Amino acid sequence: MRRAPAEPVDARAVAAAREALTGAAPLVQCITNSVVQTITANALLAAGAAPAMVDNPHEAAAFAAVASAVLVNVGTPTDDTARAMRLAAAAAAQHGTPWVLDPVAVGALGFRTRLAGELLEHRPAVVRGNASEVLALAGAGGGGREVDSTAAREDAAEAAGALGMSTGAAVAVPGDVDVVTDGTRTVRVSGGDPLLTRTTGAGCALGAVSAATTAAVVLPLLAAVAAHVHVGLAAEVAAEVCGGPGSFAIAWLDALDAVGPDAVRAGARLA
Amino acid sequence: MRRAPAEPVDARAVAAAREALTGAAPLVQCITNSVVQTITANALLAAGAAPAMVDNPHEAAAFAAVASAVLVNVGTPTDDTARAMRLAAAAAAQHGTPWVLDPVAVGALGFRTRLAGELLEHRPAVVRGNASEVLALAGAGGGGREVDSTAAREDAAEAAGALGMSTGAAVAVPGDVDVVTDGTRTVRVSGGDPLLTRTTGAGCALGAVSAATTAAVVLPLLAAVAAHVHVGLAAEVAAEVCGGPGSFAIAWLDALDAVGPDAVRAGARLA
Amino acid sequence: MRRAPAEPVDARAVAAAREALTGAAPLVQCITNSVVQTITANALLAAGAAPAMVDNPHEAAAFAAVASAVLVNVGTPTDDTARAMRLAAAAAAQHGTPWVLDPVAVGALGFRTRLAGELLEHRPAVVRGNASEVLALAGAGGGGREVDSTAAREDAAEAAGALGMSTGAAVAVPGDVDVVTDGTRTVRVSGGDPLLTRTTGAGCALGAVSAATTAAVVLPLLAAVAAHVHVGLAAEVAAEVCGGPGSFAIAWLDALDAVGPDAVRAGARLA
Repeated sequence: MRRAPAEPVDARAVAAAREALTGAAPLVQCITNSVVQTITANALLAAGAAPAMVDNPHEAAAFAAVASAVLVNVGTPTDDTARAMRLAAAAAAQHGTPWVLDPVAVGALGFRTRLAGELLEHRPAVVRGNASEVLALAGAGGGGREVDSTAAREDAAEAAGALGMSTGAAVAVPGDVDVVTDGTRTVRVSGGDPLLTRTTGAGCALGAVSAATTAAVVLPLLAAVAAHVHVGLAAEVAAEVCGGPGSFAIAWLDALDAVGPDAVRAGARLA
Repeated sequence: MRRAPAEPVDARAVAAAREALTGAAPLVQCITNSVVQTITANALLAAGAAPAMVDNPHEAAAFAAVASAVLVNVGTPTDDTARAMRLAAAAAAQHGTPWVLDPVAVGALGFRTRLAGELLEHRPAVVRGNASEVLALAGAGGGGREVDSTAAREDAAEAAGALGMSTGAAVAVPGDVDVVTDGTRTVRVSGGDPLLTRTTGAGCALGAVSAATTAAVVLPLLAAVAAHVHVGLAAEVAAEVCGGPGSFAIAWLDALDAVGPDAVRAGARLA
Repeated sequence: MRRAPAEPVDARAVAAAREALTGAAPLVQCITNSVVQTITANALLAAGAAPAMVDNPHEAAAFAAVASAVLVNVGTPTDDTARAMRLAAAAAAQHGTPWVLDPVAVGALGFRTRLAGELLEHRPAVVRGNASEVLALAGAGGGGREVDSTAAREDAAEAAGALGMSTGAAVAVPGDVDVVTDGTRTVRVSGGDPLLTRTTGAGCALGAVSAATTAAVVLPLLAAVAAHVHVGLAAEVAAEVCGGPGSFAIAWLDALDAVGPDAVRAGARLA
């Protein structure tokens, strides 16, 4: 439905997506974990989007119907936010609002694993998870320690493809080289910096930037790839000027703003 | 009750308010949205106040009775924090604790619009909201996209005056020029920097600094004006040294500390 | 059970603990207040640990059984997180997972005072609280304004010793000189910087680093002392390069990473 398989996913398309994001200034509803709300909102603002953390069950569905895109991150679910997630995902699906699922620690913890399984039925445009999370979502077992994946990356790439085929989502799995696939096509994105993994919420914010980009371009695969290139290049800029993990996060926010279409076209390393 | 209409609201009074804030080191109870709690607490600490995020219904009323001031921000209401807000506002009113209402996204979303209407009955000292939020609170319709106001500013200035008259609050509406009015007098505050709108929680923190200042001076109109001058000047200092939206927020916290009474007197641009 | 009274707690042992922390890369479950989650997670990452904010009652016990250590901070308790705290502390005790209690504002507010009393029965390895909080926990009265202790420090040192004797915990009380005691031995740690008290969550993050260190060394007293030295030295480094309270927090995170075993051995000022 949101697929246009012939559209190229190359440096030029990624640069156009970066430009479209700023032009659209999308309103992104975030139902995300309590640890990363601030950096998520600031990353969206730096990238040119407008965040709105509407995460209570009274308002979540109504807002998802009018938002440009929705991010659902199951990192710290409460009974109330879990209800808000279900309502927002259902409303997004009903109203054609693209939404992104970030299945933090799914597979390792029961409550959120069941929750993510239910959410998946509302067909996210993008799923962003590490190897063990994607294996768990794809029903291929997995599990393991939160955030830091222990599953083999190649198994995960296969599971990501299967998950993309069965749900229609673009599935993104981070690594030394990030893998983004919709089951039909697979794009490998090089870049980024290890300091991203020492900044709480950097990965979650990548999910949010992916959501923002789904509001600006038609093809979810392109949206996810463009977000990964943008976030990764910003990390490279930040790593050069920072003095440690604290100042890295700040420089990365600065760079999310500064890295525009030209930098994205010149810097994208796709395979 | 907290009115002293003859008191001047000029650069000298604003500087005295800045000095009184540091001298009082007020304990400010914050029941605020989950996205901005950290920057709100840090802004209060930088400005010379002491934050206390007591936002559960078991403790909120008891704390409001002894706090120097209370901030109520409806940005991410849950059933529990909404109850805590009602209890704290009622206790503040009963015990003479000045309190500030920040009606984030009121008008656009039903649950919080009803909540803010109830809270208003407990007579806040200051209301800080954008044009569409103030229009909605004043019963003048409005609504519109969260945070970013779409209503005409002049309509909002009129509605702010009417809201001030009916509730006794000083009502502050941000803009290129901020409008602060209690319905009797209107002060226009120039200054600030557009990067404030790209820093999540900067506006919410302004509400908190306004609350802190209500604990240090008698006249709510002066408290709100002084907070706007202080926060705006700090933003101007930060904009000159920062490298983007990430480093702006950090430099702004530094400047909230550094901008003292002399800088406020020299820099206040009031009309 | 976790005691080895003959083990020295000196600069060499503290340096070894710092090295063991990085080597262990412990997974630290944090059930902490909503204001400080981000800086807590970032401080743990900077120090070499892995944070996991699993704070809902559905998952808290299962995670505490497998985590390397658990932090319980009662700063902003909700009914749900209070349940999660009880479940996690009980599971930690049952499975031998060391855990740390940070009794924020206990004594001043009723709900959390009762909660902390119940939690104490599950025998934390470390309790980190200011003078009035420790006096309240020790049943010696106290109370007073949140965060900023009003009780005399010497009374608190005595109460800390009594609390250590009765619970088996190492009890740490901040001050110009921090006092850490298990009732048998008392270590006084000099250092740090007043800007730590103007950074929201710095004290709470110290509790988290203490928890991480309990996973890396056997003796809770040593773990707490090592964390205080590490965090204090990082503050001294940050104070020299920062421009105010905003940039202090960022430089402090950088320094938590940079201050390694050698710096700890050279800089520890213990008495």
